Amino acid sequence: MLALGASAQIPALERVEPMFWWVGMSNPNLQLIVHGNNIAARNVVLNYPGVKLKAVHKVENSNYLFLDLEVFSSASPGTFPIKFTKAGEKALVYNYSLKKRDKSAGRAQGVTSKDLIYLIMPDRFSNGDESNDSFDNMREKGINRDSMYSRHGGDIQGVMNHLDYLKNLGVTAIWLTPEIENDEPHASYHGYAVTDYYKIDPRYGTNELYKQFVEKCHSMGLKVIKDLVHNHAGTEGYTISDMPMKSWVHQWPTYTKSNFRDAAVMDPHVSPMDRKLMQDGWFDHRMADMNESNPYVQNFLTQNHIWWVEYAGIDGFRLDTYPYNDPAYMAKWAQDVKAEFPKLSIFGETLVWSAANQAFFTQGNTVNRGFDTHLPGITDGVLKDAIFEAINGNDGWTDGVGRLYSVLAQDFLYQDATRNTIFLDNHDMSRMLSVLKEDFTKYKSAMAMLLTMRGVPQLYYGDEILMKNLSDPDGLVREDFAGGWKGDKDNKFTADGRTKRENEAFNYVSKLANYRKVTTALQTGKLMQYVPEKGIYVYFRYDAAKTVMVIFNSSEKEQTASAERYFERIGDAKKARNVITDEDVDLKQIALPAKTALVLELLPGITH
Amino acid sequence: MLALGASAQIPALERVEPMFWWVGMSNPNLQLIVHGNNIAARNVVLNYPGVKLKAVHKVENSNYLFLDLEVFSSASPGTFPIKFTKAGEKALVYNYSLKKRDKSAGRAQGVTSKDLIYLIMPDRFSNGDESNDSFDNMREKGINRDSMYSRHGGDIQGVMNHLDYLKNLGVTAIWLTPEIENDEPHASYHGYAVTDYYKIDPRYGTNELYKQFVEKCHSMGLKVIKDLVHNHAGTEGYTISDMPMKSWVHQWPTYTKSNFRDAAVMDPHVSPMDRKLMQDGWFDHRMADMNESNPYVQNFLTQNHIWWVEYAGIDGFRLDTYPYNDPAYMAKWAQDVKAEFPKLSIFGETLVWSAANQAFFTQGNTVNRGFDTHLPGITDGVLKDAIFEAINGNDGWTDGVGRLYSVLAQDFLYQDATRNTIFLDNHDMSRMLSVLKEDFTKYKSAMAMLLTMRGVPQLYYGDEILMKNLSDPDGLVREDFAGGWKGDKDNKFTADGRTKRENEAFNYVSKLANYRKVTTALQTGKLMQYVPEKGIYVYFRYDAAKTVMVIFNSSEKEQTASAERYFERIGDAKKARNVITDEDVDLKQIALPAKTALVLELLPGITH
Repeated sequence: MLALGASAQIPALERVEPMFWWVGMSNPNLQLIVHGNNIAARNVVLNYPGVKLKAVHKVENSNYLFLDLEVFSSASPGTFPIKFTKAGEKALVYNYSLKKRDKSAGRAQGVTSKDLIYLIMPDRFSNGDESNDSFDNMREKGINRDSMYSRHGGDIQGVMNHLDYLKNLGVTAIWLTPEIENDEPHASYHGYAVTDYYKIDPRYGTNELYKQFVEKCHSMGLKVIKDLVHNHAGTEGYTISDMPMKSWVHQWPTYTKSNFRDAAVMDPHVSPMDRKLMQDGWFDHRMADMNESNPYVQNFLTQNHIWWVEYAGIDGFRLDTYPYNDPAYMAKWAQDVKAEFPKLSIFGETLVWSAANQAFFTQGNTVNRGFDTHLPGITDGVLKDAIFEAINGNDGWTDGVGRLYSVLAQDFLYQDATRNTIFLDNHDMSRMLSVLKEDFTKYKSAMAMLLTMRGVPQLYYGDEILMKNLSDPDGLVREDFAGGWKGDKDNKFTADGRTKRENEAFNYVSKLANYRKVTTALQTGKLMQYVPEKGIYVYFRYDAAKTVMVIFNSSEKEQTASAERYFERIGDAKKARNVITDEDVDLKQIALPAKTALVLELLPGITH
Repeated sequence: MLALGASAQIPALERVEPMFWWVGMSNPNLQLIVHGNNIAARNVVLNYPGVKLKAVHKVENSNYLFLDLEVFSSASPGTFPIKFTKAGEKALVYNYSLKKRDKSAGRAQGVTSKDLIYLIMPDRFSNGDESNDSFDNMREKGINRDSMYSRHGGDIQGVMNHLDYLKNLGVTAIWLTPEIENDEPHASYHGYAVTDYYKIDPRYGTNELYKQFVEKCHSMGLKVIKDLVHNHAGTEGYTISDMPMKSWVHQWPTYTKSNFRDAAVMDPHVSPMDRKLMQDGWFDHRMADMNESNPYVQNFLTQNHIWWVEYAGIDGFRLDTYPYNDPAYMAKWAQDVKAEFPKLSIFGETLVWSAANQAFFTQGNTVNRGFDTHLPGITDGVLKDAIFEAINGNDGWTDGVGRLYSVLAQDFLYQDATRNTIFLDNHDMSRMLSVLKEDFTKYKSAMAMLLTMRGVPQLYYGDEILMKNLSDPDGLVREDFAGGWKGDKDNKFTADGRTKRENEAFNYVSKLANYRKVTTALQTGKLMQYVPEKGIYVYFRYDAAKTVMVIFNSSEKEQTASAERYFERIGDAKKARNVITDEDVDLKQIALPAKTALVLELLPGITH
């Protein structure tokens, strides 16, 4: 159990957050959190036209004040003092700024099925600024690239240095694992143990650099997704080490882990304690479980997230450990965020058992007993497993390609499955190449499906250059991108630095990704799939402009297929173009090597 | 493709169906199907107070007339002639009766979670009347008990002779596989190739005997479920061999099988042809696929089903091959039937992949894009598989007992999962004992779960005396109940005829089934389940009267459990009674042998 008052001596006015705000937000209310030694003993004075100090809340911990402000639309941008006064002492002053909103086009634009996301762990991609590798005033010192738990020195500058590489690959959106401060003593390079919500981790860069990163991305036609963690916080952040109130986090008599059971959230037969363990149990000793039913916590988190969008212009949010959060708060959060940024996209991490369990968490689903989560998208792990089963498995009614067919048929569960983020791997699981047993044919088939399927496809950094490894037993799925560090033996960012096979992989993914970029049928077209036969699975993506046929032979032997069965989509087309090889294919006689997926663009038929 | 006019010469007035009806039905409309040689050349004369001949429909085949009658509430029971006249010829006359409805209590009472269903294949249970074993005027002659495809001679009288046995076992409802005429040349003993919708198969008995069977059951507190087949009909029935119109059945240029893919019914990405194959393809060469979108077919089927309830007083319907039917018709059918018999229960066979796929077909589900099937219950094959996985599988997150936990958590998908029929086997699958590898401990654990779980439990005849076999490879899952035939070496209907082990099984099932009969907590109580730990899975059924704890140790080794974790349901109870052994159990120290499920009734705690 975390106690109050355990922290060391703090300054009289340590911080005010959000440290600035904007005029003209949709929600006129703003709650400032003020942290300072015995700050609650002071009075608050604020005078600025268009801004009303509505309430000053004292809470359990006298080191905090919460100020409720209303910022009227009549307020002008500007700076004004907030004075914290006490008889016989000099007033403490914080100069608060209300800025003008940046309404430029191309900010907060949303990431959709038209995009291709590339997921990067900034510590492991490229070290673009060696001067920020380590700081004496932070708990973890130095870098150690030989250790998977230590920091390696990668940073935002490193990502910025390789935007051309990503653009060339065909990526249109970048998702960084959390880049805000994680000042924990051990293994917080992943970013999910936040210690300062308003500060880019100095080892990754500065707030200003992050803003520049987003602007540079936007100027190149790339979008940026920010990774948010509502559920928990690093134990070293000021709101945890010196909590405003005991109910800031979920408290337990002794350290109590989550049971990690999403089922407990949806089970109508649930034991209330099982549900409480799921939602209020801790993820880890160093990750305090936030009490999201506490209105102060709610304001603190929501304002922080809105702040980052308005500050940096980011385009989408990925929400960590979605099922562990408080559902009512998360629904309100999504509505509050969308009220400010209607186009911003949001998807939640759902590592759950089935499509129904995924759908339970999605906006407009109908299975969640009338409760609307307002969460547009989820990470579609069930589709991922189905793609692997289709490729690795043996053909069966609901095994092999039968599984993939069956899972897609369950799209009836979603309001809109095209909002699902689809993927083959990420930082928490085995690399796709290793799941596919390092079989290059299977690798290409998986990539073909990822880049032609419904949903928002997401690549994990390095998959395109054949990075591998299993999450179990060694967990080496977060290795450095070779060439991202000065002195690296190989530089996989360049064709010259890649092996022949790696170039073949890169070119395959790049060809498909760039084809996808100009093919609306793959972005927003309809999907039609067919019952698999003889281990051959076929689906089409189509719109008025084009029809793309994907045909996958899951069997271990070569087969020949005729497209006649697919007359509903083939129409009178006789030929198609193989999108990878640019060769023409006779639709009456399609040669299908073992375990191979072909992506075929139908060539218009001759009208008689 | 079936053609018209292929039948042999038929009488001038072969039949009128329904052959009689009732006054005072909720729906005043009645459509008579009239079959006779060139009957369409005749005029129809009908005069009876309160009955109006609204329309006479001639159809493609001149051997048919369809008469639309309206039976007003003012009509009195009685008999009147329907004359079929033709100039210069003697009128043909059918004397039609309108009977008085039997509104006695205890008819059409519905089968609910308070019941325990016992499924019987009448050909294979007991031969109570050897005089009806074979008929010269039927296509399949003789009986041959050595052949699994031949008729064995079992009949309704055989079931009637053993109602005491079933009553003693604790059964409260009997479901017979279809007992109406299947006059096909081969292997129609199962009853799913109907050739006369209005006639009990003579080898099983007569309509009058069936009525007596239902009445006898009711007098003993047993209910009766009738098994209906909407989807297909035996090819030798008069409406198929001499079809009223080509569109009576689904026609294909050549014989075309269903693809048997329920997914194609729900898939938003479906190929229309795949969906058509699923719903309109044939089940078998000898089973014509009914065109349920044809209004004549609709009337023919619906009226037949209503006729049987009013005639015999049966309590529930089981619907064969539910997903293959026309959804719109089936929804209307259910509403029409419930309008006449509001308490009658209905459940549909759904051999599908997942709980979501099952839920798709159920009444009030919310995933079926706004379409309400009005089907109250389904056969919960997904729960069956989960029970087997819990017992046979290895403990894992969603394997072993984790699967059962996860499947039950998905009850959020249903409007009311207690309407699901739950089971461990039936005539189409391996016997439960064999699935459990003939392990008697596992057998008892499975039975314990079946009889304490939410839903309407269903036993398959002979499971209680350890009948076994796998559906694959040999399919011997429809063997005769030993003792059902004169001269059988053993008679398993009596304790003396059963082995020690068989008596142990019978007594185990009987003890639990009879306990269930007097324990409302198991019938209609709530369910609470807990996240499995160390392979131990616990759930409770409870109401104001009692709390029953079911605890299953899935591991291969003995374990000891304390009930403290389950404080929400245990309260201050210290002891429980083992329902099977009647021994007291200390809840702080519950000994759990390997693979064993205990059923414990909590004893009231001492209030301090």
